Amino acid sequence: MSVTAPLGFRAAAAAAGIKAEGPDVALLVADWGCSAAAVFTTNRAQAAPVVVSREHLAAGQARAVVVNAGCANAGTGEQGLRDAREMAALVAGEIGCRPGEVVVASTGVIGVSLPMDKIRSGIAHAVPCLSRDGGAQAARAILTTDTRPKETVVEFPLDGHRATIGAMAKGSGMIAPNMATMLAFFTTDAAVDPRLLHRALREAVGASLNRITVDGDTSTNDMAVVLASGAVPVKAVMEEGRDYDAFRSALTEAAREIAGMIVRDGEGATRVAEVRVEGARVESEADRIARTVAESPLVKTALNGGDPNWGRVLAAVGRAGVDVDMARVDLFLGDVWVAEDGRARAYDEERARHALAEDPIRIRIRLKEGRASGWIWTCDLSHGYVDINAHYRS
Amino acid sequence: MSVTAPLGFRAAAAAAGIKAEGPDVALLVADWGCSAAAVFTTNRAQAAPVVVSREHLAAGQARAVVVNAGCANAGTGEQGLRDAREMAALVAGEIGCRPGEVVVASTGVIGVSLPMDKIRSGIAHAVPCLSRDGGAQAARAILTTDTRPKETVVEFPLDGHRATIGAMAKGSGMIAPNMATMLAFFTTDAAVDPRLLHRALREAVGASLNRITVDGDTSTNDMAVVLASGAVPVKAVMEEGRDYDAFRSALTEAAREIAGMIVRDGEGATRVAEVRVEGARVESEADRIARTVAESPLVKTALNGGDPNWGRVLAAVGRAGVDVDMARVDLFLGDVWVAEDGRARAYDEERARHALAEDPIRIRIRLKEGRASGWIWTCDLSHGYVDINAHYRS
Repeated sequence: MSVTAPLGFRAAAAAAGIKAEGPDVALLVADWGCSAAAVFTTNRAQAAPVVVSREHLAAGQARAVVVNAGCANAGTGEQGLRDAREMAALVAGEIGCRPGEVVVASTGVIGVSLPMDKIRSGIAHAVPCLSRDGGAQAARAILTTDTRPKETVVEFPLDGHRATIGAMAKGSGMIAPNMATMLAFFTTDAAVDPRLLHRALREAVGASLNRITVDGDTSTNDMAVVLASGAVPVKAVMEEGRDYDAFRSALTEAAREIAGMIVRDGEGATRVAEVRVEGARVESEADRIARTVAESPLVKTALNGGDPNWGRVLAAVGRAGVDVDMARVDLFLGDVWVAEDGRARAYDEERARHALAEDPIRIRIRLKEGRASGWIWTCDLSHGYVDINAHYRS
Repeated sequence: MSVTAPLGFRAAAAAAGIKAEGPDVALLVADWGCSAAAVFTTNRAQAAPVVVSREHLAAGQARAVVVNAGCANAGTGEQGLRDAREMAALVAGEIGCRPGEVVVASTGVIGVSLPMDKIRSGIAHAVPCLSRDGGAQAARAILTTDTRPKETVVEFPLDGHRATIGAMAKGSGMIAPNMATMLAFFTTDAAVDPRLLHRALREAVGASLNRITVDGDTSTNDMAVVLASGAVPVKAVMEEGRDYDAFRSALTEAAREIAGMIVRDGEGATRVAEVRVEGARVESEADRIARTVAESPLVKTALNGGDPNWGRVLAAVGRAGVDVDMARVDLFLGDVWVAEDGRARAYDEERARHALAEDPIRIRIRLKEGRASGWIWTCDLSHGYVDINAHYRS
């Protein structure tokens, strides 16, 4: 059900031939105008759909989302912007809304213009199929190197009723935590003020999608979007308080589930690890260290081999660019305390090896310099990652 | 001949059983006290030999270098420092100098204490073998995952005579440009003031060993050391001028040759690429962009596949953290101009594919924002890298 689980949304997909096979155009349409918010990639190379969707969402309103897979419409200059605007206009014409109410997203190869004939045909074929059951089809149509769709539904209490959040996402490579990572679409039948919607989305993404890394390569096309239909017959969430907290925490839960699915489906991933840094002076330093460890090719290949090679973790902590007293650093693999004050402890190698067989693998780094902490999810670096990416365009 | 090519140096090696097989203890001994200089890793996790060698070289004098492979003596606390000092003292006792005149270097697994019985036996066996022909043996004994030794000799004119620089190095993984990368040892029979020696080494390393990256993982044990015996019967280089320039440029040439050998022998490397950034406002920004591109797993896997996927280069430029106007960025693969002002040009795909078959592959990024430039050498990311590192300790 995913994005069509909340009341007020329909979805559909079409196979337009942009990808070699399978559905590649997805539509998500609300029954009426929704309050809406989004966060976008921090990459300075921003794809045309990112530029256009940012413009369209400036007023905090949206009616529909159109997504294509197979072509990122990035590095495509003015033509790319025209194409992205035309995608929005085509959908607007079909469903009867302003083009500015349509969010546009693309994912796939960079540097190639959108095949607009295929986009037009895909949209024309998808619109008549829009339905309350279309969420699963849409979730499949937005995938590229993903091996499986990523959807979730979270219910939460709101003013005596039950409201719902639905979500779908794609993402497997070019995944790094830097604002909205990958494409993620959230819907809810709660009514939420656009300003609060944006705040809740930023908080949810900061505690989920910005805390995953597959390869450290932040994409040009990342966006996370939330649409609130207000179809549940309760008063709108217009200010902070209990209702806002319920919504935000449900949105965060949905975003975390989606984030877990993405890192678990990371290109070539065979294992998932959580890197946690404790005892930092400030959270940003904890996050920076966690990210450096999580993106180290040597740490990621050790995860692949199930090798409790904690020296590589220590080396990554040391090069993270944070002023750390290495002579106080403790390391844990799972529950095994492997290093204390920057040097090896006497530990059971067999237990450490078992810690690398857990799911997720838990790497904990204790700095003993303050009270701030941070964490990130990552996956291993395998032959599969090389296979997928050595010949992606071929 | 390598480090024993300049007059005044002898070398030897021994197989002490620290590695599973092959020689693993190397000695380089000067006939008398030399002026000496070194640069060390910027990783905050500094191995014991780095700490001890920095102390010993503070006075700008050294007589010998002792190196072991197979154990990094990093993450080993106070015991590690005692062991590194004992290594120096053992060599000093054998050759008759102060322990403070001995440079100590280690490379191998992190977090394991040095097997001092094997170190003692290795040093005892190596000393009687010291000879003017021992350079090649020493160059072999310092290797870990390297597939071949790295040595070079450069001659240069000095005050009407010919002087010589010899060099040996090891390095294949945990290679990233951040001050002295890996272990590199330079010798010369010129006499050079220690202060100038240090300046020349910093400049040479900055234009060579700091401009290579295999995996972005800066090691805990990196050091580059130069010893000047002054055996050539000319006046010492005591100030800047023509002689200093001749020495510095020869040292830079030797360091570049060594750097090229290291990146070409990068773990699993099948191709080498030069990433050049032009038209930056300042050199540090050019270097940062070059490094981000060179370390991108997606760029490195595309190199592996010979895929001219320049969109990944553009995406890496955009996430480098430099304030760049992406709408002005040009990209070249070899001589093929693939992107102009941030978007695709009409280019011949077949020619772009041929550019990926060149050695080295040349990636050129033109920002058009200023006159500063930077460059870095990198290698591809292959199955071989994963194989070597998934089970390194096993």
